[in-house]
Parts: sequence; C-alpha cells; structure tokens
Amino acid sequence: MQSPDTGLNLRSLVTDDGHLQLILKEAPVPEPGDDEVVVRIEATPINPSDQATLIFPADVTTGKTSGSGADTVYSAKLKAGVESRVKPRIGKPLPAGNEGAGTVVKAGSSKAAQALLGKTVAVMDGALYCQYRKVNVMQCMPLNEGTTAREAASSFVNPLTALGFVETMRAEGFKAIVHTAAASNLGQMLNRICLNDGIDLVNIVRKPEQVELLKSQGAKYVLNSSDDNFMRDLTAAIEATEAYVAFDATGGGDLGSRILTCMEKAALKDTELPGPYGSNIFKQLYIYGSLDMSPTVINRNFGFSWGINAWLLTPFIQKVGPEKTQELQKRVANELTTTFASHYSDEISLTDALQADIVAEYSKQATGKKFLINPSL
Amino acid sequence: MQSPDTGLNLRSLVTDDGHLQLILKEAPVPEPGDDEVVVRIEATPINPSDQATLIFPADVTTGKTSGSGADTVYSAKLKAGVESRVKPRIGKPLPAGNEGAGTVVKAGSSKAAQALLGKTVAVMDGALYCQYRKVNVMQCMPLNEGTTAREAASSFVNPLTALGFVETMRAEGFKAIVHTAAASNLGQMLNRICLNDGIDLVNIVRKPEQVELLKSQGAKYVLNSSDDNFMRDLTAAIEATEAYVAFDATGGGDLGSRILTCMEKAALKDTELPGPYGSNIFKQLYIYGSLDMSPTVINRNFGFSWGINAWLLTPFIQKVGPEKTQELQKRVANELTTTFASHYSDEISLTDALQADIVAEYSKQATGKKFLINPSL
Repeated sequence: MQSPDTGLNLRSLVTDDGHLQLILKEAPVPEPGDDEVVVRIEATPINPSDQATLIFPADVTTGKTSGSGADTVYSAKLKAGVESRVKPRIGKPLPAGNEGAGTVVKAGSSKAAQALLGKTVAVMDGALYCQYRKVNVMQCMPLNEGTTAREAASSFVNPLTALGFVETMRAEGFKAIVHTAAASNLGQMLNRICLNDGIDLVNIVRKPEQVELLKSQGAKYVLNSSDDNFMRDLTAAIEATEAYVAFDATGGGDLGSRILTCMEKAALKDTELPGPYGSNIFKQLYIYGSLDMSPTVINRNFGFSWGINAWLLTPFIQKVGPEKTQELQKRVANELTTTFASHYSDEISLTDALQADIVAEYSKQATGKKFLINPSL
Repeated sequence: MQSPDTGLNLRSLVTDDGHLQLILKEAPVPEPGDDEVVVRIEATPINPSDQATLIFPADVTTGKTSGSGADTVYSAKLKAGVESRVKPRIGKPLPAGNEGAGTVVKAGSSKAAQALLGKTVAVMDGALYCQYRKVNVMQCMPLNEGTTAREAASSFVNPLTALGFVETMRAEGFKAIVHTAAASNLGQMLNRICLNDGIDLVNIVRKPEQVELLKSQGAKYVLNSSDDNFMRDLTAAIEATEAYVAFDATGGGDLGSRILTCMEKAALKDTELPGPYGSNIFKQLYIYGSLDMSPTVINRNFGFSWGINAWLLTPFIQKVGPEKTQELQKRVANELTTTFASHYSDEISLTDALQADIVAEYSKQATGKKFLINPSL
C-alpha cells in the first residue's frame, strides 16, 4: 500500500493569552534512517500519563471547538493557578501520546528495520497522537502473528507498570502487594498477573460494584475504602498476606497513610509491648499517580520503619536494564489478549479528540470512559 | 570504693486509672556476668528519643509530685487521645534513658570486663535513669584518659546520629545536606562535622537568634523558615551546594514538602521545558523526629523522583555494621570535648527528675533547657 505524502499530528499548545489549544499540524510523512521505521498509527490510548501534557492545564468547562478536518481547533481557558507552571510551554506546540500500535509503512536500510516492513508493531514514544510516526526499531515491540493494532495499543504503559510492581515487590523482598484504584485497567491486569504468579494482592477500590467486578475476576482480597470496617479488614488482609508494599494511584489525601497504619498494626500483632519507634518491619508506599491532586497527608502513626516514594515506569525500566525489559515485553506480547487485555469504551479519530464534549470526558482522571484514538480513521 | 547494696531505678508507669507516674524502684545492685560490668551512672541526658517512653503520654499541666527521697512519686493524667496507644503499657513500670556515662564499680571475670574496672565509660542502653546498671562490655564505649562522665554523657545518640547523616549522604551519592531544627545540640554537632569534613550544609532554623548562633559557629548557609524569602533563598542554597538530601527533625507540617519543592526548582534551573514528571534528580527527605506532631503534608509539586523515609539511629547502626560503628565511636571519643561537645542547662538528681516543675520543662520537645540527670547526686 502506498502511503500519502503528509500526515496530521496532534499538538497541545499553551498560548500567551491564557488558553490551551489542541490543534492538528500537517507535516510530510518522515523518511526513516537506517535503523528507523515509519509507523502508521492505528490505535493509541489516552492514559492518565498522557493527560498531564495533553489537557491537564485546561479548564475544560470553558472548552470550545471550531473548524473541521485538519483545521479543527479546540480551545479552553487555563485552570486558575497553573500559569507559572505552564509558562515554559507558552508558544511551543507539544506532542503527546506515549504508546500505540500500527503498521510499518516505511523502513530504513538495516536488517532489523526491513524485517518490520508491513508488520503490525507496538510502539513506545511521546508523540503518537499522529498519523505517521518515525521511530527507532528499538522502540518497537514485535507482536505475535495475528495480533491487531487495537489489541496491541496498550502494550507498554499499563502492562509494564503492572509487571514493574511485581518485579519491585520481588526485588525489595516483599511477599504481597496492596494496590489502590484496583478496578482500573491496570488494576485488573495486576490482578491477573498476581493470580497467574501466585502472589497475594490486596485490592482497594471505592465502590461496591468495583468490589464485585474484581471478585468476579477471581480476586481474593477486595476492600472498599468507603466501608466502615475498611481499616479493620485491611489490617486483617495484611496480616494474612504480609503485604508490606503498597502501590497507590490516588496520591492525594490520607489513603496511603491509612494503609501504612494498617501495615503497622498487622506488623505489631504479636508484639505485647511495642517500643516508641514501632515495629521493625519495613513498610513501603509507592505513589504512582495523582487521581487525587490534593496534598498527601501522612499521619506518621506507624512507627519509624517506612518509606514513601514516587514510582514511575521509565526509571524502573532504566533500573532493571534492557535484558529484563525484553523478558517482560515478551510476556506482554504472548499474553496480550489474556493477562494484558485492555478494554476501551470509545474508538475516536484525531479530529474527534478535539471535540469539546469528548475532551471533557477524557480530561477526567478517573473517568469511567477509556478512549482509544485511531488516527487512521 | 565500696558500692552500696541497693540502688534506685526510675520507672515510667501508666496506671489503669488513666495516669502516668514516674517512680523510683529500689533494687539490689546487680552482679555482673563474665562479660558484663556494673556502671554507677553519673551523667545521663534527657533526649527527645527518651521523652517518648518517659513522659510523652502525660498531660504535664496536671502533674503533681508527692513524697520525698526514694518515695517520691510524680503523677499526671494521660493526654486525651493516647489511651489506646498506651494500653499495652498499663501496669508495667518501664525503664528509660538511652545513653549515659559513669564509673565501672563491678566487673565480670573476662579480660575485657576486668580492663574496665574503675574506668569511666559511656554506655548505650535503654534503662540508664538509675544509679547502677549492669551492661555488656560491648555496650561500653572506651573513653580517652581524663574524659569525665559529664563530658561523655551524650556520646551516642546525637554524635552517631549526626555522623549517620553524613554517612547516609555519602552512601547514597549525595554531595551536601539540608538540615532542619539546625540550632539544636545535634544541629550544632552536624555543623562542626561538616565544617571539619568540607561538606556543604544548608541549616534551617526558625528564629533570627538561631541564625546568629550558627553563623557565629562558622555556618555558611543558615536560613530562617519564617522569612519571606525563605523558599527563594533555600532554592539558591541548594543550587549552590547540590544538597538533594534533607534530614528533618520537625516531621509534621509542610516544611519537608517545601524543601523538596526547592530541591526540584534547583534541579530544573537549566531545564528549558520540564516534562510532566519533573527532573530526574533524585530528592530524598529523611524524617528523624517529630518536633511537630501534626500530620506531614506533602504537596507533590516536585516531580516524580523523590523519597520520604523515616531515619532512625538503631537501624542505621545495624546497616553499617560493627566495624564502621566502632570507627565512628572512636572519632566521637577523640573529639568529645570539641566536635561532639554537648551543653546542658541543668544538672539534676533522680528525685529532681520527678518534680512537677522540672518534668513540665523537659517534657517540651523543643525546650530551650537541656537537662542532665546525675543519679549519683
């Protein structure tokens, strides 16, 4: 198939008059270097990690869309209070889209590049909300025969994050995991990984229907943080599983602190007279998201043996190195339609992604809707 | 010198009618085993780490003292809200006093024990608010000839903590340190260590006179967290020193979060367009005290490369091992009247330590007064 000469690229732009715009820039389809390929992007999800650059600074209640086709423009006022934070962005159209999949339509001269020509690949990059993207062959994950772009769209961020939690747990000598916002796509993946690998997982959700969802998927421990007995039940689950590492997507508020409090209670269950510094069992809270943007409130009523750290995929990958990463990617490729299956509520085009009502939906951090952009539509 | 047959031991007791009592228990002077010695305690400080067990649960505004001599009893109502926390303590008289110094009056049969007979030694233990204490020779730090018990009273907690901060900085690849509550005895020690060792130290205090005190002791960076320009000046000091590890004695409130914010600003100073996850420079906050008992408030406006951990002396010593610990102790012994000199406002007896007005003073976490108990008075 012959590819056209130009393609559209979605850009997020902060203007000097206090607006955030989403625009489409037309550009020539790039020419690949020796070790590069050009991928026609056919499926790319909107993850929380994309929202930060794409839409976070906008007050989407003020959003309006004008024009059509390649001239579509979305514009919204900036949120109050973000001005100083976005200052470095003013006047610079930023790309977005951290992962996706599509067909290799051009390939460089190297053997590795040529081998991918015509193949469906998954890609990790920072600019995949576009029609054609040039990437190094190293950024491509080879897919098993028959895997579709839609199936492979979310091959990196959620799968490697979920696997990263398990690897982190193992590397740091923990036995089991506490996970919040556990009904998310990521949380469901983590549940499947833990069930497969025989790891105890304590799932924390916020709604009764999320408890049901995870239980229907075989989860043993699912706790609703809104329940009256949440702290008691969480302590009991930690006692049973020895889950002294938690991965928290909410970030703000005191949920992380409450988890550490329950861990300490579980750790002290056989201690008749705890000393002033609490138990010796090390308790670790990783914050990997900010579904709640408010400050983290830490009550420090859990002794003096604990750590609270940010957890992010990129440093994890750098830390474990390319060999381990390839091993993890291979597992993802093999289990893409089972363990690592993602579900989307809506498939949209690039111009759809600039419509005010759709932007308002995907700007929500904890939206029930999960959008998949198909730039080739 | 012949030692008497019995000695007094201070105990902190929570009663089942909701009071905390400080009492003196008379007990026979112990007999040492082969590798043990009995030390007549002559100088033992009241550190924040002692206050937790000794007096923290008491509402000292209700404190009353009755009796005299060995029959002196201090009694105060429990603070509101601590009931469940102190429940395991009820009816159990607890010892206190983590460090001190005195004369070895009895020694076991081993060579190491016999070598200490008659000598002045510094001791680390959990029960030194007493007249005679049996300890293993391994708990004794040999002192240089001529060192007095008063000079050696604080040979462990503050000196090893201050040295531990520097060792932690080095082990984790940091170059310089931010320290809060920097005008404390510990802070002054840390300042002297850093000056001696050529390490940049950014001192944070809360009062103008504390700025003057540390500057008069040669400190280069001393910032008052109450100043309007605190954040700007702290950022500049971190830029200048690359101090990306902080040790915080306050614990509560947002001071730690503000330090991390300034670290991130300093880390991003040469970054034209920071990504959504901030700088790659790892920023570490260690909380080693709770001068402010309120919750820690973390604003998370400093990217995704950071850690917040509790720091405590005992796990540090266990981590570095006996050889390193002995090396550090040797330095302390050699510099006990210079780098590691402590200052006390009042020398008091065991019965003085049970007087309501004195208890009210030393129960303050950040008191200006620094008491030294001399149980042999």
